[in-house]
Amino acid sequence: MFAPVYFDHNATTPLDARVLEGMLPYLTTQHGNASSRHEYGRAARRAIDEARQRVAHAVGAHPTEVVFTSGGTEANNLFIKGAAACLSPGLVAVSAIEHPCVREPAKALRRVGWRLRELAVDADCRVASADFHEVVNERPSLVSVMLANNETGVVQDVVALAQAAAPARAWFHTDAVQAFGRLTLDFRKLNAAGVHALTISAHKLGGPKGAGALVVDKRVELLPLIAGGGHERGLRSGTENVPAIVGFGLAAELGVADLDARTRHFAALRGELEAGLLQQGATLFGAGAERLPNTCYFAVAGIDGETLVGRLDRAGFAVAAGAACSSANPEPSHVLLAMGVPSSLARGAVRVSLGADNTVAQVRDFLSVLDTTILQLKGMTALTS
Amino acid sequence: MFAPVYFDHNATTPLDARVLEGMLPYLTTQHGNASSRHEYGRAARRAIDEARQRVAHAVGAHPTEVVFTSGGTEANNLFIKGAAACLSPGLVAVSAIEHPCVREPAKALRRVGWRLRELAVDADCRVASADFHEVVNERPSLVSVMLANNETGVVQDVVALAQAAAPARAWFHTDAVQAFGRLTLDFRKLNAAGVHALTISAHKLGGPKGAGALVVDKRVELLPLIAGGGHERGLRSGTENVPAIVGFGLAAELGVADLDARTRHFAALRGELEAGLLQQGATLFGAGAERLPNTCYFAVAGIDGETLVGRLDRAGFAVAAGAACSSANPEPSHVLLAMGVPSSLARGAVRVSLGADNTVAQVRDFLSVLDTTILQLKGMTALTS
Repeated sequence: MFAPVYFDHNATTPLDARVLEGMLPYLTTQHGNASSRHEYGRAARRAIDEARQRVAHAVGAHPTEVVFTSGGTEANNLFIKGAAACLSPGLVAVSAIEHPCVREPAKALRRVGWRLRELAVDADCRVASADFHEVVNERPSLVSVMLANNETGVVQDVVALAQAAAPARAWFHTDAVQAFGRLTLDFRKLNAAGVHALTISAHKLGGPKGAGALVVDKRVELLPLIAGGGHERGLRSGTENVPAIVGFGLAAELGVADLDARTRHFAALRGELEAGLLQQGATLFGAGAERLPNTCYFAVAGIDGETLVGRLDRAGFAVAAGAACSSANPEPSHVLLAMGVPSSLARGAVRVSLGADNTVAQVRDFLSVLDTTILQLKGMTALTS
Repeated sequence: MFAPVYFDHNATTPLDARVLEGMLPYLTTQHGNASSRHEYGRAARRAIDEARQRVAHAVGAHPTEVVFTSGGTEANNLFIKGAAACLSPGLVAVSAIEHPCVREPAKALRRVGWRLRELAVDADCRVASADFHEVVNERPSLVSVMLANNETGVVQDVVALAQAAAPARAWFHTDAVQAFGRLTLDFRKLNAAGVHALTISAHKLGGPKGAGALVVDKRVELLPLIAGGGHERGLRSGTENVPAIVGFGLAAELGVADLDARTRHFAALRGELEAGLLQQGATLFGAGAERLPNTCYFAVAGIDGETLVGRLDRAGFAVAAGAACSSANPEPSHVLLAMGVPSSLARGAVRVSLGADNTVAQVRDFLSVLDTTILQLKGMTALTS
């Protein structure tokens, strides 16, 4: 079977074989509902408790601070809508580069009387300090700034932002879906700086789809999005997805254990990749800021990103154009537009996001194919213009 | 390894080995995000499309009427909260025997100005006709009556109820989580009678935990609970849980294909079980009404259900006491109380819910162990009284 090279780990990662092995008992003999009070149920409950400890340990939180959800999108919605439902309508501030699963629930709050402020970013995708201070002076009740951006990989200094936001006494949330497994996360330290909640997801770090968590300071009052049997301390009802939660726990543990080695591996691969891209005349986005070590986001002037991604796909390389997580959307990336990148260049955006199994040889092959493809596409443009 | 006999299929079912086999490619090589526009992503999208067709076919719906969720609890919340958010606050009517994942979101609507009416049931767990007509006259905007109850297995005549509700012009929803795979479901027919939405879940019919669906008439306006990338026609954002959705499709197909054989098998086993229970002096709940063929709910006067379930567990039989889906809850079942069962007897409630793999020999062993256990417990009661 032909297996294209997978360079799209920010969209989702392959399930780590060690994680799948740990999940299999819960997909076969250990099939209990964790709420059942017989041996099958107790085994499921123990597995969830253990996974909660693993996830908590991996992010420096206490197990009771971990609320399991079906994924990152649900966890972000739970924070934004759940916290807002316990507050009087006020100001919600989110960065202009948030994932739609933060932006859309924030926008939805306007239906129930909230005001929304989008925080500007600079040309390197960092939340702009002056604008942030101005918003803090408007006393937001809720603030959400992602830890690392899914497109550019740019890392925000959420510790500094949370400290700056302290005078507003807002609940401060950070979407750490892309950061988890790629940077060290320490919720205790973040919480001490004024970060009250953190979103993480299993399938971005070698875990299964279908599990995520909101790690949340217990002082934050939340209404559940999904009510019912009272699971997850009443914050998220529904029969627990035991195999996925078990997989999340294992992936979290492995993600932390392997982090340093993976970081060095990514640095070597991305260094080679970006040197080659610059030689080919590409523009790198966010490269002036601290970035996730696995993420490279670039464009070649005059080359359409969608077209390039399609060509690369046929040539055996799976990469992403613009924002990969939303459905068919012909608009240029809202992240690049917020960074002030002109639409014409933004339409050329292509993201390579590396995983642990990628190799230097794959990067070199990619650069070679890319070079040829760009020449072909430029030739076509020349012919038709 | 000691494997207790599993008699708790209404809590959750073992994952069918054929379903797991169909899921495995999506837990290994086919790891794409269905929103990605490369071959991995397209393969994931095709798998979801196929699963959607299978689920739709199994319930007699059109694929575009199927909205995948993380499970039944989420689908019930999506209907109740999502439909209410598009209506002016009014009256929501739900039966008194609904699962908490319908009752709790219905109660939550009171926070935003809605009135809640619980529909009474008769001694056999059927929605009481007189009370239902009275409520219809009060013009509810939303009505939810479950198709089959998780505890008693009693089946409601939702066609008649939906027809009776027609003058109110309410959106009529039915939680079919327990019914799917145990009764024939035909959304076209139900929809023609005035049922606008149906909730189903994979893990109750041999599918995986982590997938469910709201099957919904497209005239019903819904706001999403979980907003973001616009997945599921904007009604449920978040990276699709591809393996679980694939498994849901396969389980739905198998559940329909095997239904007649399973029904006969259940009838034989339950006939033997209930004859034995009556001989042992047990009271059967809901036995005067049409019930799911796999469900038997009983109590023995003077015997505490929790205690009995604990004893049976140690003796190698996994059964449920009272409501199995909610967390530790010392109250007697709200379903039995709504049926007018005295608290003392309701505290004795034990549910046996059969699955395709259960055998007559297991039922006979169970009756034998139950007989001994009841005699022991009665002896203890006699000694301490």
